[in-house]
Parts: sequence; C-alpha cells; structure tokens
Amino acid sequence: MKKQLDLSLYLVLDPVLCGGIEGMVRTTDLAVKNGVTAVQLRSEHSLNRKQWYEAGLALKQLLSSTSVPLFINDQVDVALAVDADGVHVGQSDLPVDVVRRLIGADKFLGLSVSNLAELNNVPWNLVDYLGIGPVFPTTSKTNAAPALGVAGLQTLVAQKCCPAVAIGGINSSNLAPVVQTGVEGVAVVSAICGQVDIAQVTKQLMTQISGAK
Amino acid sequence: MKKQLDLSLYLVLDPVLCGGIEGMVRTTDLAVKNGVTAVQLRSEHSLNRKQWYEAGLALKQLLSSTSVPLFINDQVDVALAVDADGVHVGQSDLPVDVVRRLIGADKFLGLSVSNLAELNNVPWNLVDYLGIGPVFPTTSKTNAAPALGVAGLQTLVAQKCCPAVAIGGINSSNLAPVVQTGVEGVAVVSAICGQVDIAQVTKQLMTQISGAK
Repeated sequence: MKKQLDLSLYLVLDPVLCGGIEGMVRTTDLAVKNGVTAVQLRSEHSLNRKQWYEAGLALKQLLSSTSVPLFINDQVDVALAVDADGVHVGQSDLPVDVVRRLIGADKFLGLSVSNLAELNNVPWNLVDYLGIGPVFPTTSKTNAAPALGVAGLQTLVAQKCCPAVAIGGINSSNLAPVVQTGVEGVAVVSAICGQVDIAQVTKQLMTQISGAK
Repeated sequence: MKKQLDLSLYLVLDPVLCGGIEGMVRTTDLAVKNGVTAVQLRSEHSLNRKQWYEAGLALKQLLSSTSVPLFINDQVDVALAVDADGVHVGQSDLPVDVVRRLIGADKFLGLSVSNLAELNNVPWNLVDYLGIGPVFPTTSKTNAAPALGVAGLQTLVAQKCCPAVAIGGINSSNLAPVVQTGVEGVAVVSAICGQVDIAQVTKQLMTQISGAK
C-alpha cells in the first residue's frame, strides 16, 4: 500500500558517516522512532551494487511496519529490486519520464533542482516532490551545485508547484529560516548521520521544525 | 524479437578509450560491419547515469537493424530504459536471481566469474552465458581479479555448463591459445577501442578466431 508522503524531516543516509549498512539501519531505527518522516539511501562511491541491494533490503524490512517511506537515490533498479516506496533522482540521472515509466504510477518520485532553470523544466505531472538545494555549503556531497542561501531558496520556493524539501548543510543552528521559506520539510545528512545521540538530535530537529512553522 | 547469441567476438566498449559517446557509436559501427558479434556498454566512473542512458539509446538505435545484441553492464535500469538485449553483471552487482526477475525471461543475462568457487555458485538456469577472466592482466578494469592465465581459463572452461566468453587482456598476439580452450568466443576492450583502424583490427581478430577454432 502506498504510504503517506510527509516531508517534515527527511533523513538522507550516508554509509560512510553512519558506519556501513549496520550503522545505517541502526541510525534509521533511532531516527524514525524519534520523528524522521522519510528516509533515503544515498551513496556516492562507497557501496557496490550488491551492497546497495543489501542495504535497501535491510532498510525496507525495518521500515515496512512503519508509515515512513523508503527512497532510493539514483539507482532505479535497486529501488525496483527491494520494492522501495520511491526513487530520488538528480539532473545527471535517468530522465524523469524514463524513471516514471520504470517505476510505475504507484511509487514516489523526487527530483533535485538547484536553480530556476531546472525548476522551470520540471515535468510537474510526473514528480511527487522536489529537493531544493544546496541551501548551505555541504561536505556530504562532492558534486553539489553552488549554495543558494536562504534568499535563493526563497526565490525557488515561491515558484514551485509541488511539495519541496530543502537540502544542503541544514542543521539545528540554521534550520528555522529554512523552514520559514515555506518548504514542506528539510532533508538532513550529517545533522543525524554520525551523531553520538541520534534520538536526541532527531527530537531536537523535530521540535525546531514544529516551532518554526 | 530476441536476437541470436553469438559470442565469437564480443566488444566491450570503454568510453574513455573510445572518446566518449560519439566515439563508442563510431567504434561500434565499424566493428559490427567487420565482424563483431556482440556489444557491451561498460563504464567504471566516466559516465553519469544520464550519459549511460544517452549512450545506451544511441547504441540501441545503431544495432537495432543488425543481428548483434546490445548488453548493458551492471546498470539494469539503463538496460530496461533503452530496451537493451541483455545485461552483464559481476559478482559485486545485483544478484542474478534479482536481475532475472527485473529483466524477465526474454533478455540475455551474462555473469562474470573469476575462479572455481564462483563458477560452482552460478545458477545455470538463470544465466545465458559466462564471462570468464581476466585471462591476462588488464589495464581497462581497475578492480579486476588476479589473471587466470590460459591454464587457469582451461580449468574453468572444462567445468562450465553454459556458453562462455573469455575476457581480460586478450588481443591478436595472445588470442589463439585462448580460443583453443574451448570458449565460445573472446571479449576485447583495448584490442578494438582506441585503435586507429577499427575495421582492420576487427577483421584480423575475426580471421584469427576462425583460424584457431
């Protein structure tokens, strides 16, 4: 059954920061129990495709009894193989129309945009949500576009036509003005992955999001 | 319609050696006109997924009017997206049973094996052919297993239960003893990709294969 899409606090897993597949599962378990509303598996080069599949299976099993959807970044075949709830792609990945054809109508599809030109090219009827960013400089993605800043984010949010999550260098110290641009939620990587007390930092982020809205 | 599987001379395309997507298309065109019987798109890190897709589409279009099948390495979603004739996976990729489920019964599925243990684990009923190697040391794959040598290849060929293509450092100077092990064909990368006269080297390889059989 298709889950609800709640973008409030969207966790993007990094296998290096989390400590491998087991670390990602442990992080996800704690984060979901403390408020995370969506989870994405992402890895630049640290997982081979067999490990992507194994990580996806483990996360799918963990999340299957929850209302939290699992997204797979880029690798549509891994998403199909583990029956994930959705796929998230960027501008250098398979085109959105091709992805929608491969995954069908019942899966979520998210797309990253980094500027107004990309936003104006989004095929709205095929996409469920946008990832807009990077808002701030980020260290967890090597090929990120230049940071938008809160003002740049605000400009894109004003033009958007579907739900959006802000991403890129967001943590508890800079979250409030990001939420106040009107995005449906924020995506975090290092604000949760690799933190000593996952439960506590997740609760704090959720409290700040609620307070800022 | 499903094409015939003729492994005699199997070209594995390298976008760096060939000079990008246009170079791969040009190389394939000349190679197929001069005897190559199967083509695989492979790239370690030089293509992003959008480029994989664009390369796959261009090769699919070129080969659609020929009897030569197009294989996509590893990226099952790209294979599905461009309706390739088959997929080739290694031991670190999506498991063979998962790949077969994703591509269905009508596509070819090839699997790389590098030793007897891997050969003994092959699910024969799911695989159309094996890639056995590397026979000789290779410079076109960074994570290759130790070279088998002709004697090591011979040992594996004696145990195989489906058609096989030998791969790894094979060129016109060392091809004859490889063919004489009883493989159905040889796969080459740098023996064709990046060569000045693609037509001439392809013809020479085909003549040598016929002579050695």
